[in-house]
Formats: sequence, C-alpha cells, structure tokens
Amino acid sequence: MRDRNRQVLLKRRPTGAPTTADFDIADGPVPEPADGEALVRGIYLSLDPYMRGRISGTRSYAKPVDIGAVMEGRVVGQVVRSRDPGIREGDYVYGGYGWQLYSAVPGKDLIKLDPNEAPLSTALGVLGMPGLTAYVGLSEIGRPQRGETVVVSAASGAVGAVVGQLAKRHDARVVGIAGGPDKCRYVESELGFDSCIDHRSADLGAALDRTCPQGIDVYWENVGGAVQQAVFPRLNDFGRMVMCGMVSEYNDVELRPGPNLMAAVRKRLKIQGFIVSDQWQRFGKYRAMAAPLVRNGELKYREDIVDGLDRAPEAFIGLLNGRNFGKLLIKLGDDPTTGR
Amino acid sequence: MRDRNRQVLLKRRPTGAPTTADFDIADGPVPEPADGEALVRGIYLSLDPYMRGRISGTRSYAKPVDIGAVMEGRVVGQVVRSRDPGIREGDYVYGGYGWQLYSAVPGKDLIKLDPNEAPLSTALGVLGMPGLTAYVGLSEIGRPQRGETVVVSAASGAVGAVVGQLAKRHDARVVGIAGGPDKCRYVESELGFDSCIDHRSADLGAALDRTCPQGIDVYWENVGGAVQQAVFPRLNDFGRMVMCGMVSEYNDVELRPGPNLMAAVRKRLKIQGFIVSDQWQRFGKYRAMAAPLVRNGELKYREDIVDGLDRAPEAFIGLLNGRNFGKLLIKLGDDPTTGR
Repeated sequence: MRDRNRQVLLKRRPTGAPTTADFDIADGPVPEPADGEALVRGIYLSLDPYMRGRISGTRSYAKPVDIGAVMEGRVVGQVVRSRDPGIREGDYVYGGYGWQLYSAVPGKDLIKLDPNEAPLSTALGVLGMPGLTAYVGLSEIGRPQRGETVVVSAASGAVGAVVGQLAKRHDARVVGIAGGPDKCRYVESELGFDSCIDHRSADLGAALDRTCPQGIDVYWENVGGAVQQAVFPRLNDFGRMVMCGMVSEYNDVELRPGPNLMAAVRKRLKIQGFIVSDQWQRFGKYRAMAAPLVRNGELKYREDIVDGLDRAPEAFIGLLNGRNFGKLLIKLGDDPTTGR
Repeated sequence: MRDRNRQVLLKRRPTGAPTTADFDIADGPVPEPADGEALVRGIYLSLDPYMRGRISGTRSYAKPVDIGAVMEGRVVGQVVRSRDPGIREGDYVYGGYGWQLYSAVPGKDLIKLDPNEAPLSTALGVLGMPGLTAYVGLSEIGRPQRGETVVVSAASGAVGAVVGQLAKRHDARVVGIAGGPDKCRYVESELGFDSCIDHRSADLGAALDRTCPQGIDVYWENVGGAVQQAVFPRLNDFGRMVMCGMVSEYNDVELRPGPNLMAAVRKRLKIQGFIVSDQWQRFGKYRAMAAPLVRNGELKYREDIVDGLDRAPEAFIGLLNGRNFGKLLIKLGDDPTTGR
C-alpha cells in the first residue's frame, strides 16, 4: 500500500473542449475509514462521456464537480481495511469514488463482486452502468421488434456495443455507426451487427439509404451532430429515437439547432431521453440476465485500458473525440484476479 | 333540393401560404347514389389545419388531394335519398365527403347522429375528430398528473379548448396560449383555464415564467414556431411534449430549425407525435364520456360558423393564420334541428 493518495482534481471549468490544463494532479493522504466505512484501493476507474456534463457549471440532472474537488467516477477495487462488519479486507467491490487511488466508502454503498462471475472490470462496462444503460433504453423506449431496423451510433463504444447485441437478440436488423474502418470491422465481425457505417469517410445519408433500405425504426442516439442530422429524416412512421447522449456536441459552447419537429407529428415519432441513474433498481435484473451471456461469449465486449491515473485527463479528452476503442478504463493498480 | 352540386376543387398546389386562386369553385351534377349508398346533403363542413398537408405534394401520412379533385373534408348532413337499407331519408349523419354540397356515400361509412344527444355541429368539433384528438393525445402521451402544469397552444381552438378542459379534470394547472385579448379572455373565463397568455402581445418567455413558476410538465403543441421556442427550454424534468400539430409552420417553404435535443437527454423528455386517425376505434368511448359533459355544460365549446361553401377557401386561409375563434365550420345548408 502506497502512503499517498494520488488524485485528479478539477482545476477550472473548460469552455469548449477540455484540455489537460483544466485538471490538477495532486497527492493527498490516504483517507482513514470511519466507522461503517471501508478503505478501497482502486483497480479500474471508469471514464464516461457523461462526465463532461459534470465539469460544466450548467444545471443538469446531477450536481457539478466543484472546482478543486476530486473528479467523480466509478471504480472497481479491493478492500484494504474495513470498519464495516459486512465488508472484509480483500473483498472486491464496485463503488470506489472518483479519480483517485484510494477512497473511504460507507460499506452500504459498496457492491461486492465475485471475480468468478465475470472479470472485475466488466462491472464498469458490459455488466455495469453502460450495459444497464443499453438494457433500460432499449426495453423502455426503443422496443425493437422482429425485422425492424435499429441504427446505433457510437456502435463500438461501451453502450452502443451492448445496444446492438441486445437488439440482435430481438431479431432486429442492426446497423452500427462508428468512426474508422477498424471499429466498423469490429462491429460487424465481432459484435455481429448486420452492417456498420464509418461516419468519417462515408456520405452518411447515402450509406444509410444503402444499409437501411426499409428506413429506420429505432435510432439509438449517442452522438448528435451530423449523425443525428442524417438519421432523423430517415426515421420511419412510429420510429423511436432513444436519446442516450450527444457526445459530439458536449464541447459546444452554443447549442446547435436541432431537427424541425414537424416530422414527429407526421410520422408519429417518439423522441425520448432517459438517465440510467433513475433506474438503478433494475441493475440486479440486468446483471442476472447479462452475466451468463458474458461468460459464454454471447455478449461480447472490448475494453480500452489506459495505464495510470495520471493519464486520465488525456484519456478523457480522447473519449470526447472518439479516440478510445471499446470501454475506456484507467488502470489504477494491480488486478490480483488477472495477475496484471 | 338544388339540382347542382357546388364544389371547391384544388386548382394548384400552393407554395407557401395558400390563396383563393389555388382553389376553383365549380357546379357539377348532384351524384346518384349507387346500390348501398346514400345521398347526403351537407349541413356543416369542418375546416381543419391538417388540410394544409393534404394540398402539398409532399409525402405524408395520408394521400394528397389531386389537382382538380374536390377538397377533402368531413361533413355533417342529412340523407336525401338512400339505397342502403340501414339508412333512411331524413337521417342525420356524420360522414359526408369533401368541400361540396352533396355527396354519395356508402351507408357503412356513415355514422347516424341523434340531434337530441348533442347539436349536430358538435360531431365535427368537441364531439368529433378535434375532441377525440385532445382525448387521445392527453391520455396516451400527455398524461397530466394532479398539480402538474400543462401549457396548451391554440387554446381557444377546437382541439386546444378540449385539451385544457380535460387537463383541468385531471386537477392539473392549465395555462393556455392564444392570439389576442378576446380569445384569452374566453379561455380564462369561459373555458376555465387557470391563465392564458396572448402570444401576440407578450414577451412570451417572461409570460411563461410568470404563469408557470414551477416550469412546464406537459406542452400541447398545436402551433410550433416562436411558441415552441419559448416553451421548450421551460419544460421540466420528465416533461411531455404532445406533438399534435405545428400550424404556424404549415405554410413554410423551408423547414425551420428545431430545438437542440440535448435537453431531451438531460431532462428525460418525451416528445411524441400522433395522428388521431390511427385511433378511430376510441371514438365511441370518447363520445360516451364527452357527450354528457357537453349536454350539462361541463365541457364547453365555441363554433365559428361561416355561411356558404364559396367562402371556404378564404376561411381556410384564415384558419392557418389564427383568424377563426373556435371550431371553424362552413354552413353548407339549413340545419332543420336548429331552424337556422
């Protein structure tokens, strides 16, 4: 155990695209767990696009990170010391806090992980918040029917990959949109989407016409921007637009105009947003469904693991530009279950 | 019975705002009912904003009116001659066709009206398609809860008036938006909305802030344009936007930009369109609920009756500009039940 707790702090609120200068890296004392708390050593830190909202000053569904405070984030780790009778030293847990190596966490806020159920890191991706996001949005809003066409943006990402694979299990036709040939190849050949469009190279509209000859019934919105503009006019009557995120616009200083909503009347569209944290109560059900599929290889996932907390700001900036390939994780420390 | 059938025909497709020159008025022969048909003499013709879509050439949920064809529209009338055993001469019916004095209609497409149940004209308004529109959109999409704030655009119109009165029956707080002080006074004092904003005179944003201090939970969209722009950013978390129409944009040649949809994610909005003709099966249930309320005065309505088919084009053009005050009807001929 190191005797200092390295942390990434928010130095200032970025206007537009964040830079590494918006963050501070500092060493503080390792916290002492209070009664009822456990000290968690972080193994993996999850970086996710929603964090861009947390460092803006604008009102949103969650409180922003204060200037000078530790950046928020979810962590998988191991218990180093416990003052909660239900938590033991050595336990693997989901629920460390923030961009830091150690945190003292109330035992009641920790979820124990069984490394034999699935690799620890999956609790931050395919079996964690991103997987649950896919499950909730698809079952509550998208509801793909057999033979319908589902288009998934950011298809190789942590959420999109699960969306597409679940939609295939509903016998939908699934078309991904991703950035670059490597991601598209992965989406088609590994994840088993019917097709994948490279939004960087293609005339997106023409590519959608080609890959979605019957139009689009469900659009999973992760990105906004030009992709949204190309998809929107191609939605079918009774189309559903699952508003999960619009990462390509998160760094915008001014809101761009959106689509004219007359089509929502004419085509009886449903455009609906959701936030996964409203639906934590479904986490257990999702994991019970998805963990066996992950173990037997039916639900595939890919991780992009960056080593070392100090690289978190740079990796996060890359995430907002689509530079990661798979679920982005920061390796905070050794994972005894993999020996790496 | 006149021996000629006066008709309004579509002469050409308007670009932008229609003018009377886009229509032709012609006299044709009174049709002969075929076997199974009845000849209906029109009493009231309904003019509704959706007709603007029918005279555009663009693809929509219904087939456009052909050039040279009779304008489409719903009529209440009286059977002059019948070759359907279930329909008798003198019957009052809902279901004549088009902007014309007479039509020959299959008996199975006619709904008999009992003038003792409610005035005949209400079958085109509060107890007809506009009323059903309000009922369906509110029960399927808007779902106002006790204490929520519901904003209704075109509040004195055929649909809006019913929306607001039904929302009050759900114990919601209801704020109307209408054009001009007379309509606003009517909406507040006759229809019983909690408040009504004149979109012509007010700083709409400031007026919404004043009348909706708790934000907006349900927005009934009839108009689009500047009203939509003012309402959208004031929607609350989990707000519902019932996309019924956007009449202020129907004459646009180019689509205007819409709102940026990031708010749909952040606030978990639902923006959903519907078309009442998908829901005709609910007509009976709606009438059974609403007709007693109309009779006992709990569900109020107002009609703007223009005399004479020849004035239909001009009245329709006025409807698109909000010049009507209440449900717009064209009086085609005498109503024996009122003696007028």
